[in-house]
Amino acid sequence: MRRPVVVLMLVVLAVAVAAGRRDEGMWTFDNVPRALIKQQYGFEITDQWLEHVRLASIRVSGASASFVSPDGLVLTNQHVGRDQVAKLSTPQRDLVKDGFYAATRAEELKCTDYEANVLVSYEEVTTRVHGAVKAGATDAEANAQRKAEIAFIEKECSSQTGLKCEVVTLYSGGEYWLYRNKKYTDIRLVFSPEQDIAYFGGDYDNFTYPRWNFDITFFRIYENDQPLRTAHYLKWSANGAAAGELIFAPGYPGATSRLLTVAQLKYQRDVGNLLQMQMWTARRDALIRYQAIGAEQARRGSTPRLGLENSIKRLLGQQDGLRNPRIFSKKENDEAALRAKVAANAEWQKLYAPAWDEIATAYAALPAYATRIAFSNLTASRLAGMASTIVRYGEEIQKPSGQRYPEFADARLEGLKFGLFSSAPIYLDMEQAQLTAWLEEGVKTLGAADPFVKAALGGQAPAAVVKQVIAGTQLANVAARKALVDGGHEAIKASADPLIELARRVEPIIRELRAWQEEKIQSVDASAGEKIARARFAVYGKTAYPDANSNLRFEYGTVAGYELGSTLVPYKTTFYGLYDRAAAFNERPPFSLPARWKDGRGRIDLSTPFNFVYTADTIGGNSGTPIINRNAEIVGVNFDSNLQKLPNRYLYVDETEGSRAVGVHSACIIEGLQKIYGAGSLVNELTGGQK
Amino acid sequence: MRRPVVVLMLVVLAVAVAAGRRDEGMWTFDNVPRALIKQQYGFEITDQWLEHVRLASIRVSGASASFVSPDGLVLTNQHVGRDQVAKLSTPQRDLVKDGFYAATRAEELKCTDYEANVLVSYEEVTTRVHGAVKAGATDAEANAQRKAEIAFIEKECSSQTGLKCEVVTLYSGGEYWLYRNKKYTDIRLVFSPEQDIAYFGGDYDNFTYPRWNFDITFFRIYENDQPLRTAHYLKWSANGAAAGELIFAPGYPGATSRLLTVAQLKYQRDVGNLLQMQMWTARRDALIRYQAIGAEQARRGSTPRLGLENSIKRLLGQQDGLRNPRIFSKKENDEAALRAKVAANAEWQKLYAPAWDEIATAYAALPAYATRIAFSNLTASRLAGMASTIVRYGEEIQKPSGQRYPEFADARLEGLKFGLFSSAPIYLDMEQAQLTAWLEEGVKTLGAADPFVKAALGGQAPAAVVKQVIAGTQLANVAARKALVDGGHEAIKASADPLIELARRVEPIIRELRAWQEEKIQSVDASAGEKIARARFAVYGKTAYPDANSNLRFEYGTVAGYELGSTLVPYKTTFYGLYDRAAAFNERPPFSLPARWKDGRGRIDLSTPFNFVYTADTIGGNSGTPIINRNAEIVGVNFDSNLQKLPNRYLYVDETEGSRAVGVHSACIIEGLQKIYGAGSLVNELTGGQK
Repeated sequence: MRRPVVVLMLVVLAVAVAAGRRDEGMWTFDNVPRALIKQQYGFEITDQWLEHVRLASIRVSGASASFVSPDGLVLTNQHVGRDQVAKLSTPQRDLVKDGFYAATRAEELKCTDYEANVLVSYEEVTTRVHGAVKAGATDAEANAQRKAEIAFIEKECSSQTGLKCEVVTLYSGGEYWLYRNKKYTDIRLVFSPEQDIAYFGGDYDNFTYPRWNFDITFFRIYENDQPLRTAHYLKWSANGAAAGELIFAPGYPGATSRLLTVAQLKYQRDVGNLLQMQMWTARRDALIRYQAIGAEQARRGSTPRLGLENSIKRLLGQQDGLRNPRIFSKKENDEAALRAKVAANAEWQKLYAPAWDEIATAYAALPAYATRIAFSNLTASRLAGMASTIVRYGEEIQKPSGQRYPEFADARLEGLKFGLFSSAPIYLDMEQAQLTAWLEEGVKTLGAADPFVKAALGGQAPAAVVKQVIAGTQLANVAARKALVDGGHEAIKASADPLIELARRVEPIIRELRAWQEEKIQSVDASAGEKIARARFAVYGKTAYPDANSNLRFEYGTVAGYELGSTLVPYKTTFYGLYDRAAAFNERPPFSLPARWKDGRGRIDLSTPFNFVYTADTIGGNSGTPIINRNAEIVGVNFDSNLQKLPNRYLYVDETEGSRAVGVHSACIIEGLQKIYGAGSLVNELTGGQK
Repeated sequence: MRRPVVVLMLVVLAVAVAAGRRDEGMWTFDNVPRALIKQQYGFEITDQWLEHVRLASIRVSGASASFVSPDGLVLTNQHVGRDQVAKLSTPQRDLVKDGFYAATRAEELKCTDYEANVLVSYEEVTTRVHGAVKAGATDAEANAQRKAEIAFIEKECSSQTGLKCEVVTLYSGGEYWLYRNKKYTDIRLVFSPEQDIAYFGGDYDNFTYPRWNFDITFFRIYENDQPLRTAHYLKWSANGAAAGELIFAPGYPGATSRLLTVAQLKYQRDVGNLLQMQMWTARRDALIRYQAIGAEQARRGSTPRLGLENSIKRLLGQQDGLRNPRIFSKKENDEAALRAKVAANAEWQKLYAPAWDEIATAYAALPAYATRIAFSNLTASRLAGMASTIVRYGEEIQKPSGQRYPEFADARLEGLKFGLFSSAPIYLDMEQAQLTAWLEEGVKTLGAADPFVKAALGGQAPAAVVKQVIAGTQLANVAARKALVDGGHEAIKASADPLIELARRVEPIIRELRAWQEEKIQSVDASAGEKIARARFAVYGKTAYPDANSNLRFEYGTVAGYELGSTLVPYKTTFYGLYDRAAAFNERPPFSLPARWKDGRGRIDLSTPFNFVYTADTIGGNSGTPIINRNAEIVGVNFDSNLQKLPNRYLYVDETEGSRAVGVHSACIIEGLQKIYGAGSLVNELTGGQK
C-alpha cells in the first residue's frame, strides 16, 4: 500500500533498467524482429544463426528443452522431466526424491513414454486452408471444411516426409502454417537432482525471486539404440549470464490470450478461470487426501500434485491480472482503438466490424454450458482418461481421416498410441481416489439429474461405482489396452471391461457437448477470429506476434535485476543465498537441503551465480528453454517467472514493473555437477572438456 | 497488484503467525500491561524485573541504548552513535568509514558532546499541573500557567535531587509525570564498525528486510574519570533470539501521532508532512552538492546526509500510510466511535465534545502560517543554529525561569550549554553551503517580501550574505561562544559577530511566529487535547498507552517471520546472506564489503544469525533499544523497521500485515567481534568470559 510513492522515488534514484526498451514478443521464427534487435542491441541475427538455434531447440511434453552436446544430450528443467523420473521410480527407489546420475551411458534409464520434437522446417499454408472454405458456407460448415483441409495437409506431409506434420493456427486463424517435426521417442534419463534442491522453497517460492532452484535435468536422445549425433547443439558459455547482457530464449511457450476480444476476456475472468480453478483445486485436494494415507501414497501423489499446485498458483496470478482494473481497461482501450480504426474505413467496417459482436453473442451463451463441459469427462484419472480415449478411438477410426476429431486424424495416430501404450506404472489406488473425488465434485456441481452424472453413476454413489470399475478393469495392463486398440471398433464396442463400459456410457454426453461447443463457439472463434486478425493486419501490418500455442517461438531480452519496494533485487543469486535461506528457516521443509548439498558445501565456490532474471517475454511452456547469448551459447536455462509477470497471459507486462523470467545460471550447473555430484563426465560433455 | 488474492491463499496455507495476538503498545513503565502479557505468554513481570530493566535502559540523543556490562559498557546502533564517531574523526582518520576498536580502556575516545540519561524514578504530577490553571483562564493563559508550574516542578526537583528532572506530558495533556534522570556526559567510544557493514545496502535496504546490517556501536560511560560501576546491566543471552520467542524492548520511541484528531491528521497529511519533506529534501540536496566537491567534503557531509535520507524515507512511508484510504478511514471511524460514546452521556458531551471542533477551528488557521514557521529559522546550519540559540538565551535569561521558553528554564540550562560548548569540529565551508541553500529555499518559497527573508538578507542574495557572515564569524571557536554566553544579555546584545548580527535580525520574526503558534495552536492542542484525553479515559479507562515522545517505554512481542507476496520471509538472516547479496551485486556500492569482512569470511560460522525480525511496537527513537528475553538477557539490538510498519506513526499496523521491527542478532555480534575484529576483550566483557 505504501509502494507507489516509494517506487516513484526509486525510479529517480536508481539506475534505470533497460530504459525505454520493451523486450516484448513471442515471435515465430519466420518473423523474428531482426531489425528492432539490431537497432536496440546492435546485434544482427543471420539466417544461419537462426536455423542453428531452431534445430537445437526441442519440444517435450508441454515444455521446452535443447541439445547441449553432439551426442544427443538434452537439457531441460527437473520440473519438466519430473513426470518421467517419477515413472522410472519404484517404491524402493524414489528417483524424484533422491536424484539420479548415470555416470556411463549404460546406466542411462529409458523413459516409458517420453517424446521430443524438433522443428525441421515450416511453410505457410494460409491460402490452402482459407481456400478450402466454400463460398456461402456457414461458420460451422467452414469450420469443418478447414479441419478437413488441415487433416489432409498433415497426412500428405507425413506420407511424403515421414516427419510429424502439424498445421498450426496463428493470429486466431489469420495465418496457418505447416510445421514439420522430427520426432524422437527413445529418450533416456542421464541426470536429475533431488527434488529438495530442484524445488527448494517449494510452493512458497514458486513464482518468486530471489530464488535458489537447481531446476535442471539431462536426458539423452537415442536413435537406433545409439546416442543421436546432433550437428546442431548449443555450446556452453564460459562465464554464463552477465548483468546487462542480451539473451535469447528459443522455446515453446504454452498459451497466451493477448489477442482475445474483451468479450472473451470477460468470459475467462468471470466464468472460465473460476471453473478452471475449481477443477484444479478439487483434483489437488483429492491428491492431498490420498497422499496423507502413507509414505508410498505420498510418493505416488507427489508429482501430479506439484503440477497442480503450480497451475493453481499461476492461474491465481493470471486472474489477479485480469481482475486488475488498470490492466482490464488497457485491454478495453486497445480494442476500442482497433475498432475505431476499422470503422474509419468503409470496406474494413463492412468486412471486419461484425466479428466482435459475433463473438460477444456466442460467448453470451457459453456460461450456461461451461460447467457441464468442464465436469463431463473422466480425465482426472489417467486410466479412466485412457479408457475414454480408447472408446472415442473406436468411433472415430471408422470415419475418413478428415472427418474425425483432429487428434484422431491419421497423421496423429502414432502419437496417440505412443501415449496409450506407455509402460509407465499405474497406481490403481491413486486412480480410484482421483476418479472418485472427481465424480463427487461433479455430482456436487452438476447435480444428480445431470445427464453426465446419470450416465456415469446410474444413481449410485461415486465411491461405489469407481471401486467396482477399478477393481474389475484390466486396462492397467498395457497388453489389454493394446488388444482393444488393435481390435478396433468392434473389439472396443464389445468390451466388458467395467472402465470401458463407464467410458462408453458417458461418451454420448461428451460428444453432444463437444458438438455444441464446436458449432457455437469454436467455429465463431475461428471465423470471427480470422476477421479480426485480418483487421489487425490491415490496420497495423504484421508488426505483432501471434498468441502462444505450444509452438516454437523466439524471445529475447536483457539480464537485469529490478526494483521492489524501496530496494533493488539483484540480477543473480549465489550459492551463499541458498545456504542463507535454508539456515534462516532452520532447514524446515520446504527449505531443507539434500545431504549431498550439506556435505558438499565446503567444496563449492559459494559466490558462484545460482539463479538469475531477465526480461524475455516467456510464459508457462518456456520451462526448460535454453537461455543463450549472441554466440548461441548456453548461459542458463529458463524455469520460472516471478509473480509480477503472471498477468502476461493477457498482455505484455512492462519490465519496469519488475516482471522477470527466472533461469538457472549455467555456472551453477557446472559447479553443482562437478563438486556436489561428482558428475565429471557430464561436465566434460557439456563443456567439451574445457572445465 | 496481484498480491491480494495470493496473500489470501497464503493466509490459509501458511502457519499463522502470532495468531489472534496484537503485540501493540508503547507503554509507560507505570502502566505495563502485565496481566495481558501473563495471559498471552504466561510470563509474569515482577516489580523487581521491571526496575532492573528500566535502570539498564539509556536515552541517548534521539535514540536508545543499554548497559551491557558492570563497567558502564553501553550498546547502541552504529547509526545512533555515528554522529559522535564522525565528530571524533579527522580528514586523516575517518572512523566512520574505517571503524574503531579500543582494545584497552586507555584507547577509548572521549566524545565531544554526548549525553546519556537513565530514568531513575518517576512520579505523577497531573494534579499539580492541572491545578495550576486558574478558573476562567483563557486557553493561552492556561498554557502559560501550566508551563510556569512545570518549570517550577522541574527546578524544585533538580535542586532537591541533583538529577535532571523533566515533566513529561502524556495522553495529549491527560497526564503529567515528573521523570528524574541520572545524566552522564563523559562517554567514550569503545567500538564502531565500518560504515559499509553497519549500513550494508545503504538507503536502498533501509527500512527493508531481509537485511544484513552490523549496526552496533559500543560506548563506555565514565564518572569521575572512571568507568561507571553499573549494578543494573543486561547480561548476554547464550543463544540469542529464537523463532517464536517472547521478547521485550525497553527504549525511547521518538514520536507517534496515534491520538491526534482527524483534523490534526488531515493537517499533517495535506500540509505538515509536505512542508517537512520540502525542508528535508532541500537540506539533503544541499549536502549532495557539497559532497560532490571532493573526498573530504564527501566525508564531512556523509553523516548529516545519511540522517536526512533516513528521515525522508521514513516520512515517505508514514505519508503513504496517511494517504491510504483504508488507514485514514479507520482513523475517522475510531474518532466517530469515541465521539458517539461521548455524545451518549450528557455530562461528557458538555465537558468534552467541543474539543474536536476547537482543534478543527485552530488547525484551519494553521496552513496560512505553516510555511513561514517552517522556513523562518537558521537551524539548517549547526553554527547558525547556535548563534540563534545564543541570541535567544540573551533575551530569555533576563526573565524568571517560569516565564522563559521551556528550553531555557533553569533546570535545562546545563544541558543547553553542554551542546553550545561542544568541541566537535565545525566545517565552515559546509556550514556556508547549508545555510546558503537553506536561505535560497526560503527566498524561493516565501518570496523576497517576506519579513524573515527581508530581515535575514536585506535585499542581498543569500550567497553573498552567508559568505560574509561565515567569513567574519568567530563562533566556530568554542571560547567565543562561551564568552558570549558568560557575558549574558549585554554581551550578546553588543556582539558585532556577523553571525550573531544575522541571528539578532531574524529573532523578532521567529518570536512573533512562535507567539502566534503558542497562542493559536499549542494552547488549543493542550486544552482540547486534555479534554479528549479525559473523554478517552472516561469511555475506555486507562487501557491505552500514550503517544510516544522520546521517553522510556516498554514494548514487547514475538520473534517471527512473515508472509510477503506468495512466500515466507524468515525470522532471521545469516552471514551467508550477507555474502550472497554482496556477490549478487558484484559488490557494487552500497553492497560492498569492508576488507576485514572479506578477509575474515573463512573464519566465521556462516550460518550464524545476523539480523532478525519481531512484532514489538517500535518506532524511530527505538534505534539502539536492547531486545531482551524473559531473563532480561540481550538477544539482539533494535535498529530498524520494515516498510510495512512505517504507517505505525499514525496507528498500530497489525502484525499480520507483515509489519516488523528489525534487530541485530546477539549471536552475530559475538561472532563478528570475535572473528572479524579480534575484539576478544570486548566479547569477554559482554559474556562474562563465557565465550
